[in-house]
Amino acid sequence: MVDNNTDIDFSGLKAIFFNGTLTKSPEPSHTDRLIHISQNIMNMHGIKTSVIRTIDQDIATGVWPDMTEHGWEKDQWPEIYKGVMAADVLVLAGPIWLGDNSSETKKIIERLYACSSILNDKGQYAFYGKVGGCLITGNEDGIKHCAMNVLYSLQHVGYTIPPQADAGWIGEAGPGPSYGDDREDGTKEGYDNDFTNRNTTFMTWNLMHAAKMLKDNGGIPAYGNQRSEWDAGSRFDFANPEYR
Amino acid sequence: MVDNNTDIDFSGLKAIFFNGTLTKSPEPSHTDRLIHISQNIMNMHGIKTSVIRTIDQDIATGVWPDMTEHGWEKDQWPEIYKGVMAADVLVLAGPIWLGDNSSETKKIIERLYACSSILNDKGQYAFYGKVGGCLITGNEDGIKHCAMNVLYSLQHVGYTIPPQADAGWIGEAGPGPSYGDDREDGTKEGYDNDFTNRNTTFMTWNLMHAAKMLKDNGGIPAYGNQRSEWDAGSRFDFANPEYR
Amino acid sequence: MVDNNTDIDFSGLKAIFFNGTLTKSPEPSHTDRLIHISQNIMNMHGIKTSVIRTIDQDIATGVWPDMTEHGWEKDQWPEIYKGVMAADVLVLAGPIWLGDNSSETKKIIERLYACSSILNDKGQYAFYGKVGGCLITGNEDGIKHCAMNVLYSLQHVGYTIPPQADAGWIGEAGPGPSYGDDREDGTKEGYDNDFTNRNTTFMTWNLMHAAKMLKDNGGIPAYGNQRSEWDAGSRFDFANPEYR
Amino acid sequence: MVDNNTDIDFSGLKAIFFNGTLTKSPEPSHTDRLIHISQNIMNMHGIKTSVIRTIDQDIATGVWPDMTEHGWEKDQWPEIYKGVMAADVLVLAGPIWLGDNSSETKKIIERLYACSSILNDKGQYAFYGKVGGCLITGNEDGIKHCAMNVLYSLQHVGYTIPPQADAGWIGEAGPGPSYGDDREDGTKEGYDNDFTNRNTTFMTWNLMHAAKMLKDNGGIPAYGNQRSEWDAGSRFDFANPEYR
Repeated sequence: MVDNNTDIDFSGLKAIFFNGTLTKSPEPSHTDRLIHISQNIMNMHGIKTSVIRTIDQDIATGVWPDMTEHGWEKDQWPEIYKGVMAADVLVLAGPIWLGDNSSETKKIIERLYACSSILNDKGQYAFYGKVGGCLITGNEDGIKHCAMNVLYSLQHVGYTIPPQADAGWIGEAGPGPSYGDDREDGTKEGYDNDFTNRNTTFMTWNLMHAAKMLKDNGGIPAYGNQRSEWDAGSRFDFANPEYR
Repeated sequence: MVDNNTDIDFSGLKAIFFNGTLTKSPEPSHTDRLIHISQNIMNMHGIKTSVIRTIDQDIATGVWPDMTEHGWEKDQWPEIYKGVMAADVLVLAGPIWLGDNSSETKKIIERLYACSSILNDKGQYAFYGKVGGCLITGNEDGIKHCAMNVLYSLQHVGYTIPPQADAGWIGEAGPGPSYGDDREDGTKEGYDNDFTNRNTTFMTWNLMHAAKMLKDNGGIPAYGNQRSEWDAGSRFDFANPEYR
Repeated sequence: MVDNNTDIDFSGLKAIFFNGTLTKSPEPSHTDRLIHISQNIMNMHGIKTSVIRTIDQDIATGVWPDMTEHGWEKDQWPEIYKGVMAADVLVLAGPIWLGDNSSETKKIIERLYACSSILNDKGQYAFYGKVGGCLITGNEDGIKHCAMNVLYSLQHVGYTIPPQADAGWIGEAGPGPSYGDDREDGTKEGYDNDFTNRNTTFMTWNLMHAAKMLKDNGGIPAYGNQRSEWDAGSRFDFANPEYR
Repeated sequence: MVDNNTDIDFSGLKAIFFNGTLTKSPEPSHTDRLIHISQNIMNMHGIKTSVIRTIDQDIATGVWPDMTEHGWEKDQWPEIYKGVMAADVLVLAGPIWLGDNSSETKKIIERLYACSSILNDKGQYAFYGKVGGCLITGNEDGIKHCAMNVLYSLQHVGYTIPPQADAGWIGEAGPGPSYGDDREDGTKEGYDNDFTNRNTTFMTWNLMHAAKMLKDNGGIPAYGNQRSEWDAGSRFDFANPEYR
């Protein structure tokens, strides 16, 4: 069967993937394998993508935009943040450890949160108009638990979450092979998992569709959601229930 | 200060709120008070809204669209589901018990999940094109934990989650008054909480903006995300990493 | 290899298992199959066990000890609560739906919480001196997420959680067979999972050991943890940091 | 009112507290203030305590006992781990960021998990016989969510969790003062919170009682829970349900 092609033009969009693996380069990351599936689809449609393996970078720990102003010698986050702001799509990917997101994934969420007080020129949080997704790999349990936290965090700081914006792979309960590990028969673990493949594909397309729709519509309309206006006294038809 | 009005026309949109309180009518629900703030804004802009207090209804427990086909005498869900499908916006609201969502909130998530295999005429999950939000009240802890689960569940079955799609009120750690309870000075608990008021307002507007944008754009474009097409063999540029 | 037997005498202990499945009897419950492994070990050592499938019972929804005093016609919880109080061990078992505990599991947690204000004759919460565990089955994801909430809730109301007090079975990511389902080769899904078998066994023994130790030692010593004493003004060497 | 003293002798016990704050010394940590309440009670009863602020240490990120064997130049964890093994009580304390544990707290959980394959001389996981607790501070939401993950992780690697083993302080929903911050009237935020004070006191005493009980009883009895024995073929009355 041949895919009936879409004629939607996604060129001009940009996407950034973070990989919160605890494994430094050049050792391979299982999560990278899943990222590549999504990245590949985006690339085929003219979307510029980049992948940042956070543990390879000197990203400081903390909740300020630039930690060199708070006692850290180095901090690559301010530079990376420029890439986040340039991107229409952010995918936070990572491994599962003891059923939860890695400390590297948490560190990135903290740094995104640290920048959530920055406003765009309409007075909305700076991440408004962008879309977010999540990819998780582990050997046995926790995709949804991890994705729940990632997607919640992204929408909290201003990202839009399209339908079915997460995907992942885990094996049966207990220790076992990880995503893409060699099987005895020469195939790779998880690559034939229809659910993982479908969800990764759907997530990718929904991110693309939602990012394009938001871009074409000029982002989330700026009314009722501008922090600057609220702080200045606008209430956008909010009525205190005490006085209604 | 006067609100500068928006000229966006939201009439024609519909919203449904579920309240997962454990308190039966006619006793008041604290969560209802927060719902009314959001509902009021929507109503002022011509959106038709309805609120369903689930514990007042004969909604069966289970993971099938109609539980009368699975051993239950009564099940009002199939009727309620029609209202869910007619609505462009769904807000799942509820209380916190022991830091987590109530069993009533979980029951509604189970019933929504039960219907997630139903497809629209493009082959997408039936909830595609709709937007979801979350309102939580409690006396001390757990808004984000509860919202994390609610919003994750809604995006999983096909809802789009706009930015900052949750709001809530809790008091300081420990037992204490609930939202809207009388204070000694005649005011009401939480009604003067700027964070709760702002987040509820922003959530409401973002749901409205995203619902309108999706409606005006004909929903999420149907390419790369149709279950029927995937099952028929379309792969939408997904490439098995083993063969790339 | 033959088990070297233990000479510890566990007779006199009692255990209660709750099964939060959404499936009514007489249809089989996958979770029941895992419960039976644990129950069987306990029975072999003279522990009296009972299993309650909550969806078969008329257990009201709410956060009071007896909901017939709060608008419900029937409520079997007060009777079931007697069994909880008579038991030294409580295991809260259940299925995974959309990555989380079922609404039936949440209902039982709410009812246990509703009884957490009841004190024993030393002034401790009534569940002190008892031990708690958790068993979870699903087809693909969420054991740890579900167990996290169950075990947290049990310790919060007074249960002691011994080491490795949870176990479960899930299959690879995506829809698939459930625990104990027939395989084509005549074996049963999950029954040969060494991790599930080991964890279920370890959980069971740790519950037995901890329950016996607590019973032999007269429960958790009553000093520093009596709600009645605290409310009467005892502070047990707590010093307000402001005045230290 | 005077405390009636306990005559239980806790001397000989040791406790270690980890503080997962993102703030480096010498800046004050809000979480430290809560730790000191618990530490103070223990010290008064002859328990040797130590507090490690993890962000001040060169603790590598990863899931191996010694990361210098895996590409890291420095790693203080192997030295810190000796202190963990010497302690009968471990309290994992930390702040809340975006409703979840900090990346520093996650890093410590990863390192504890990395050591969970180490066995004691009975073949049990090395953390068996120790007890664990949790202290959380934040300005608005998330004590239970954070504690849920911490306590689950600790029991998973072998710690016993006594009743009510967590405590914390958060303020009302929204940004606001943190624990111990100065109020205008000269008092400190949260220090008069009866719930926080009581829970911190109860947690501390329950950790002390459970640690002493386990020590006096020689730890968790070694039968049915020895990884070495299971791997060698012992089954401790586990019966495969397929053959029962």
